[in-house]
Amino acid sequence: MDLTELVEQLPDGSVLTDPDLTASYRQDWARDPDAGSPLAVVRATSTEHVQTVMRWATAHHVPVVPRGAGSGLSGGATAVDGGIVLTTERMRDITIDPVTRTAVVQPGLLNAEVKRAVAEHDLWYPPDPSSFEICSIGGNTATNAGGLCCVKYGVTTDYVLGMQVVLADGTAVRLGGPRLKDVAGLSLTKLFVGSEGTLGIITEITLRLIPAQPKQATVVATFSTMEDATGAILDITRSLRPSMLEFMDKVAINAVEDAMNMGLDRTAEALLIARSDSPGAFAASEAATMEAACSAHNAAEVFSTEDAEEGEAFCAARRFAIPAVERKGSLLLEDVGVPLPQLPDLVNGIAAIAAERDVMVSVIAHAGDGNTHPLIVYNADDAAMTERAHLAFGEIMDLAIALGGTITGEHGVGRLKKAWLPDYLGEDVMELTRRIKHALDPDGILNPGAIL
Amino acid sequence: MDLTELVEQLPDGSVLTDPDLTASYRQDWARDPDAGSPLAVVRATSTEHVQTVMRWATAHHVPVVPRGAGSGLSGGATAVDGGIVLTTERMRDITIDPVTRTAVVQPGLLNAEVKRAVAEHDLWYPPDPSSFEICSIGGNTATNAGGLCCVKYGVTTDYVLGMQVVLADGTAVRLGGPRLKDVAGLSLTKLFVGSEGTLGIITEITLRLIPAQPKQATVVATFSTMEDATGAILDITRSLRPSMLEFMDKVAINAVEDAMNMGLDRTAEALLIARSDSPGAFAASEAATMEAACSAHNAAEVFSTEDAEEGEAFCAARRFAIPAVERKGSLLLEDVGVPLPQLPDLVNGIAAIAAERDVMVSVIAHAGDGNTHPLIVYNADDAAMTERAHLAFGEIMDLAIALGGTITGEHGVGRLKKAWLPDYLGEDVMELTRRIKHALDPDGILNPGAIL
Repeated sequence: MDLTELVEQLPDGSVLTDPDLTASYRQDWARDPDAGSPLAVVRATSTEHVQTVMRWATAHHVPVVPRGAGSGLSGGATAVDGGIVLTTERMRDITIDPVTRTAVVQPGLLNAEVKRAVAEHDLWYPPDPSSFEICSIGGNTATNAGGLCCVKYGVTTDYVLGMQVVLADGTAVRLGGPRLKDVAGLSLTKLFVGSEGTLGIITEITLRLIPAQPKQATVVATFSTMEDATGAILDITRSLRPSMLEFMDKVAINAVEDAMNMGLDRTAEALLIARSDSPGAFAASEAATMEAACSAHNAAEVFSTEDAEEGEAFCAARRFAIPAVERKGSLLLEDVGVPLPQLPDLVNGIAAIAAERDVMVSVIAHAGDGNTHPLIVYNADDAAMTERAHLAFGEIMDLAIALGGTITGEHGVGRLKKAWLPDYLGEDVMELTRRIKHALDPDGILNPGAIL
Repeated sequence: MDLTELVEQLPDGSVLTDPDLTASYRQDWARDPDAGSPLAVVRATSTEHVQTVMRWATAHHVPVVPRGAGSGLSGGATAVDGGIVLTTERMRDITIDPVTRTAVVQPGLLNAEVKRAVAEHDLWYPPDPSSFEICSIGGNTATNAGGLCCVKYGVTTDYVLGMQVVLADGTAVRLGGPRLKDVAGLSLTKLFVGSEGTLGIITEITLRLIPAQPKQATVVATFSTMEDATGAILDITRSLRPSMLEFMDKVAINAVEDAMNMGLDRTAEALLIARSDSPGAFAASEAATMEAACSAHNAAEVFSTEDAEEGEAFCAARRFAIPAVERKGSLLLEDVGVPLPQLPDLVNGIAAIAAERDVMVSVIAHAGDGNTHPLIVYNADDAAMTERAHLAFGEIMDLAIALGGTITGEHGVGRLKKAWLPDYLGEDVMELTRRIKHALDPDGILNPGAIL
C-alpha cells in the first residue's frame, strides 16, 4: 500500500513505518500474541490530522486502530495487519474553566495530568483507574474506565459532557458540550463513551469537574473468611457511601507485603480498605460506622486513621497489588463483576477454577461495586500452563455470567474478551450492536476485531 | 384498518377505540394543537403485550406512539393520525433489592411512587422533576428527566443501570442490569435513555438507589439584579455542591406570593433557594457559606433554616411556580440551558424578547446547572398574541443556541422543539442521528415525528 498521499497531507514525522519504531505500537498492555504488523503508525496532533487519516483510510479501505497511551488490558488497541495505528498521544492540550467547572481536554493527556491540572483550580476529576499515572483520558473515555473512587463518584461516562469525534468517513462532529444538562437529541455522547474506537475516534473531550475532594478517613480490616468480608461490604454499602471500598485476597496481601513490608496480616484471607470523604468530622464518624461493620463481621484486625499520608499508603498498597502479584509470573488480568451478594460465590468459584486448572489466581476487587480483578498467574515459558491459564481466564468469565455478572466491569471487551460477549449479551443484543456499528462504520474500518 | 387480529391477541379491555375514551390520550401536557386521532389506544400490562403491538404494527406499517403518564412538555407523546398510542400506565410492578440497592420497576409507576417505595428501605431514588407526583418513571427514562436535586445528584441516566426494551419489530432485549459497573459492549442502555420512544419502548428499568438523603439546610435570598444573583450562583457552585439551587424571577415570585402568601419580597428581581444535605453539622456550615456568597453579592434579604418543614415550604413554593404563573394565562413552557456565566445574558435577552413580542415571560430555573424554564404567558383566545407567544418561544431557543446553550435541558425535543434541533446539533449530527434511528427503526414506525 502506497502511503505517499497520506504522508504528504500530514506534518513531517507524523507517519512511522520503520518496523523498529512501529513495534512498540503493536500491542497494548494486554500483550495480545495475535497482534498484527501495522502498515504505519500515525501520531496525530490535531483533529484535522485524524480526519485526514480517516478520509484516506475510507478511500483505501484500510483499517484504523485508535490508540491512547497503550495501557489497555483487553487488547482494544492491538494492531491489525495492514492497518494504521492512530495514536493520539501527541494531542495534549487542556483548557480549564473554573467558573463552569469544566475542562476541554485532548485525548493524549494522561488521567493524572488532568487531575493535576484541575487541582490547581481546587477542582477534581474523580475517575481514577489504578493506572491513572500512565493511562490517557482519551483511552479512559473510549473504554468508560472506572477506578477506586467510582463506588461513590461514578465512572468516566458520568463526567463526559461532550466530545469531538471523527467518524469513519472523516467527518468531525461535536456532541454535547459544556452544558450540565442537555437532552436535545439522542444520547450520542454516551454512546461513544465506552465504544472502544469502534464507532469513531475521540479527539476532544469536555469533562465535568467537581470541587476538590475533602480529606478522607481510612479503615483497614482483615478477615479470615470471604463471607465475613462480604458481610462487612454489604453492611457498609447499605448504610453509607464510602469514597473507596477495596478488597485484596491472601495472595495479593502477601505479594504486597513481600514488596512493601507494611505489616499486613499475612494469614488473613481478605483485606478491606474503606474510606470516607464526608466533610468535617463526619468522615471520622463514617469511618467508625465502617469499623463497627467490620467488627460485627468478625474482622481479625481493624485499623482506622484520619491521617492522609497513612491512608494514602494503604491505597498505594492496593494500587500496587497488580505489579506485586506480577512479580510471581506472567498475568492474565480479569475484570469480572457481579451483584454484591454473589461476591463470595464468585471468589470461591474462582478458587475452584484455579485448583482445577492448577494455576494461581489472586483476587483484588473494587469491592463496593462488585467489580473484581482476578489475576491469573502463570509461567509463560510453560506452554501447558499457559494454555491452562487461558482456559481459567474463560472459565472465570463463564462463572461471572452464571452468577448474573458481567465479563468486564471497567477494562472493556477489546479483542481478548469478544469471544465471550455473545454469551453475555445474547444474540438479540449482539444484533442490535452490529446494526449500530454498521450504521456508523459501514466499511468496518474502525478498530476491526474489537468488541465485534 | 382492521384491529381484530390485534385485539384478539391482547387481554380484554386493552384496546380502546371509542373516540370518547381515546381523546384523553391524544395529547400530553404540551397540548399540541396538531395532535392526530389515533386508531386505537393500547393499555399494555406486560412486555409481551408491547411485543404483540410492535409485531402487529411492523406487519401493518402502523406508527406507534409510546406514552407514560402523559405529563411530557414537548409533545413527545402526541398521537398521530392512524397510529397506536401505547400507554404503559398499567405496568406498575416494582421489586426492590435493598442489599444491592437496586430496584426493578415497570414504566407506569410514578416517580413519587418509586421514591416512596424505596424510602421504606431507607433508600433514595434522587431524580425529582417538579412533576414528580404525576410523571412516570418510564417517561422519566425515555426523556432523561432532570429535576431539582440534579445539580448535585445527576439526572435519570445516572441512575439507570439497565432496562428491557421492545424494538420496532417486537424483539424484547435486556440491556445492562443490576451491575454497578459494566462496560461489556456498546453503551446501549445509555442510548435508549432519552431516546423519547423513537428507538424502542422501555418496558422495565433497573434503577440504582443510594442511601436516604440526609437532612437539608435551606437558604433563601433575594436580589435586586440578575447579575448579583448569578454572581452568588457561581460563587456557590464553585465552592461546594448544593443539593438544590433554584431561581425565580420577579414575575414568578409575585405569582407564587399571590397564591401562597409566604411573605416573599415582591420587589426582588431574583430569588434563590439553595440547600445543602451534607451530613451532620456540615449542612449548616455549607448553608452559612451559601449565605455569605449571597451577602457578598448584595442580597437584599438572606434567610437560612435547618428546619425541614420550613425548608420544604420554600421548595414547594418553587415547585408551585409553574401552576402559579399559569393562573395568569396559557403557558408555553420553555426549557433552555446555558453555561452558567451566560445566565444573565439569557435572562436579559428573554426580557428583551418578551418586550419585543409583547408577551409576559417569567423565568424560573434550576440555576445551579444553568437550566432555565422561561414561562411564556399568553391569552389563548387572542390569536395574534398566541402567534407572538410562539414566535417568542422560538426566539428564546435561538437565543440559547447563540449563547452556547441547549434548546432543552430536561424536557426533551418531542414535536414542539424538533424544528430547532438541526440549528442546535448541526447537519452532521442530525445525519448521525438519522443513521442510528434508521438502523433501529427502519420503517420509522416508532414515535414518528418526535425528535426527527
